Amino acid sequence: MTTKDTASAKRGPYAKAKEKRRLILDSAHAVFAAKGYLGGSLQDVANQAGISQTSLLHYFPSKSDLLMAVLEWRDELTKSANPSAGEESFEDAVIRTALHNEKIPGVIELYTVLCAESITNAHPGRDYFTERFERLRESYTRSFSALAQEGKLRPGVDSAWAAMSLVALWDGLQTQWLLAPDTIDVAKALRAYFEVVLLPEA
Amino acid sequence: MTTKDTASAKRGPYAKAKEKRRLILDSAHAVFAAKGYLGGSLQDVANQAGISQTSLLHYFPSKSDLLMAVLEWRDELTKSANPSAGEESFEDAVIRTALHNEKIPGVIELYTVLCAESITNAHPGRDYFTERFERLRESYTRSFSALAQEGKLRPGVDSAWAAMSLVALWDGLQTQWLLAPDTIDVAKALRAYFEVVLLPEA
Repeated sequence: MTTKDTASAKRGPYAKAKEKRRLILDSAHAVFAAKGYLGGSLQDVANQAGISQTSLLHYFPSKSDLLMAVLEWRDELTKSANPSAGEESFEDAVIRTALHNEKIPGVIELYTVLCAESITNAHPGRDYFTERFERLRESYTRSFSALAQEGKLRPGVDSAWAAMSLVALWDGLQTQWLLAPDTIDVAKALRAYFEVVLLPEA
Repeated sequence: MTTKDTASAKRGPYAKAKEKRRLILDSAHAVFAAKGYLGGSLQDVANQAGISQTSLLHYFPSKSDLLMAVLEWRDELTKSANPSAGEESFEDAVIRTALHNEKIPGVIELYTVLCAESITNAHPGRDYFTERFERLRESYTRSFSALAQEGKLRPGVDSAWAAMSLVALWDGLQTQWLLAPDTIDVAKALRAYFEVVLLPEA
């Protein structure tokens, strides 16, 4: 047996394990989006994946391990297939992401329900969402500060406020959209927000 | 036995039943705020109230009946002890309500988690939240339209957008506040929103 043969023989089970891991993540994504983390059980996820709960626990030793992996998986999903359109503005990148996420089934449902559930007692997702909000507020504050330096932010508008409010507005609009998809246009409403906090193009 | 005596004799059990109903609602409010509707069980509520589950089911025949009663109870809680300060502006009424709600333990937690859970499959609170958002958007649109007619709305700002965005912003800020109460000041951020969408006082 050559070194190459050994590698081939090993790649089989590795690829299979990776595939099964992904199947479980996909299933957990669907179950948590439909029932929440609190309402969805490991048995629901195993049923959705068509495997036993024992097999599931081999890949993710606990429900909270599975949750953290699903949150990371969701981050990848929302980033992938959403390439930046080259030298686009901050506003355009936000709108593009909003439109992109609406097209991925369950991704906004999952985010909305897990985020709100994370405020409940001893929820394993709490740190993830707390840190996510901190990171987003900081990142958007930098973007609004840059716009301010270019003279594009409306005088009197504070960059940190604009950042925190953009995050809050986006989350709140998504919730309203989930309950009334024909009435709420998230991307259009976010565009209008930028028109209010930024100065009109000269 | 006079009519008066009969009334007194009857008042006893009636008042007792009313008291127990309220005890159950208070308990369910605490349990759902801490664990969500999906995560909190009827047994949790019965334990919190110090009664049997059978006794609880005598008052609320199902978990979804209890949920609807808790949502109504929450509406009363947030309205009571929050009298309007006479002829106050729309903006001041919003800020007053935001500050008031922050002081009622669990009321924002309950709202945030139940609202997000209501988007999950077949959740009994879905209609309540869908209608609540419709009603709020309509009511706030009327308030912003009135401000527009008084020449107080910034030109270019649409009343319906300002209303939908105020609801969304408020909800989103509350979530961030629950995760970072020392960083987020909901009332201050809402005040800044009004400063951006309204014209400065002449």
